Amino acid sequence: MKEQPVVIQGAMEVETADLIEQMTEAREESFGPWRCVRGLVDGHPVVVSETQWGMANAAALAALAIERYRPAAIISQGTAGAHDPALSVYDIVLGARTVNESAWQSRYRAAGAGAPMEELKQLGVFAWDAQAGKFTQEVYHAADAALLAAGQAAAESYRRGRVVTGTIGTSDSWNCAVDRVRFLHAFYGTACEEMEGDAVAQIAQSFGIPFLDVRIISNSILKNQDPWDLGTGPACQAFVLSLLRAYWADRQDG
Amino acid sequence: MKEQPVVIQGAMEVETADLIEQMTEAREESFGPWRCVRGLVDGHPVVVSETQWGMANAAALAALAIERYRPAAIISQGTAGAHDPALSVYDIVLGARTVNESAWQSRYRAAGAGAPMEELKQLGVFAWDAQAGKFTQEVYHAADAALLAAGQAAAESYRRGRVVTGTIGTSDSWNCAVDRVRFLHAFYGTACEEMEGDAVAQIAQSFGIPFLDVRIISNSILKNQDPWDLGTGPACQAFVLSLLRAYWADRQDG
Repeated sequence: MKEQPVVIQGAMEVETADLIEQMTEAREESFGPWRCVRGLVDGHPVVVSETQWGMANAAALAALAIERYRPAAIISQGTAGAHDPALSVYDIVLGARTVNESAWQSRYRAAGAGAPMEELKQLGVFAWDAQAGKFTQEVYHAADAALLAAGQAAAESYRRGRVVTGTIGTSDSWNCAVDRVRFLHAFYGTACEEMEGDAVAQIAQSFGIPFLDVRIISNSILKNQDPWDLGTGPACQAFVLSLLRAYWADRQDG
Repeated sequence: MKEQPVVIQGAMEVETADLIEQMTEAREESFGPWRCVRGLVDGHPVVVSETQWGMANAAALAALAIERYRPAAIISQGTAGAHDPALSVYDIVLGARTVNESAWQSRYRAAGAGAPMEELKQLGVFAWDAQAGKFTQEVYHAADAALLAAGQAAAESYRRGRVVTGTIGTSDSWNCAVDRVRFLHAFYGTACEEMEGDAVAQIAQSFGIPFLDVRIISNSILKNQDPWDLGTGPACQAFVLSLLRAYWADRQDG
């Protein structure tokens, strides 16, 4: 049987260009105005999809790629802001799970009584639960075990920082208020925040496609490592290449 | 040329079943686990897509429907919570524009200095700007003029409440704290809040597909009209049918 491609998403050119450069037989196969490039890496099929920032774009491009390519797996990757005060720029987070940090419900408070973030309730989002045979509302979405193991194998040769396994938070927002970052870190257990991963996890789960979110810390408001270090985009792509090689090697052995 | 269908999204069965019942030649043409029904209404092609709650699902299903059906238009419709204190349950909002209420940036504040919502900055989301020939980050997405006019024509025969034209806010969250609702109403100028519309607007704009969001007030925390009135789902669908008839009549005249 023909090998199905791995789809790799990045939001911006600085998060996709190095992967595309590694390809052979690269072809542009855009979706509407979005750039999408199919080709081979080490002879294995890969599709790189440049989604632009944000959850709606990432979800739409994931769904389109699933319909067109029936991928073996989807990886969302790129830059993120630290939520864990122990993380520094160039550290990498392997998303054992992702969470939508905008999917909450505020508790009832009357006019004039304020709306403290500490009173939010976790809401979750709807994805297909194959075991239950229905859509269920879940706060966290778990990574695929084989992709996560490949990330952990790739971690052994990563020299630019630490590689940790943890929870990645996703939303269309960008937090610079330290107390809000601390709240989210405590409330969801997040290592970092980005703007695409959990939307892709949700769609991938509904279609039964293995998924992993891989993020490199590009800035930390907790450590005064701000603004954004653009060099992290290429470093993350180099890590994802190592991950893919570990993933393909494991599948050939298996 | 064959008439292209109008795609109508609703999140739940109570927001889609009545439209499906009005169809002739109805066929199930699902996307993965999501229900999608194609058929005719008054001889015109219509596709009803049941997306489940939330922005990622709505964006994914919009993109899939655009790729499969190349629709003439997309309508997001269903229930919403009031942000405007003048609105009551069964009032309808025609979304002259939509806004993603989670797309904001918090200003820098040091640890212990709090994170007041009043200091948020509007961020916007990326959609393709055909005139500029690039993706641009925009806070608001405008409705299609012809769809909006059809909604205004349908308003003349709506007897269950008022029909207003305004701004609809979208996010994966649900606000029950009155001060937060008041803040969002002032910050974005929103008439109501729901969980799908702006994600669809964003994807529709990128593909150049005319879009309208139509929402019926199902609950108002500002008027103690809570919880949710499920009867509003069918009422909104009946309104959308009137809107479609006005839209088709106008196109035949034109």
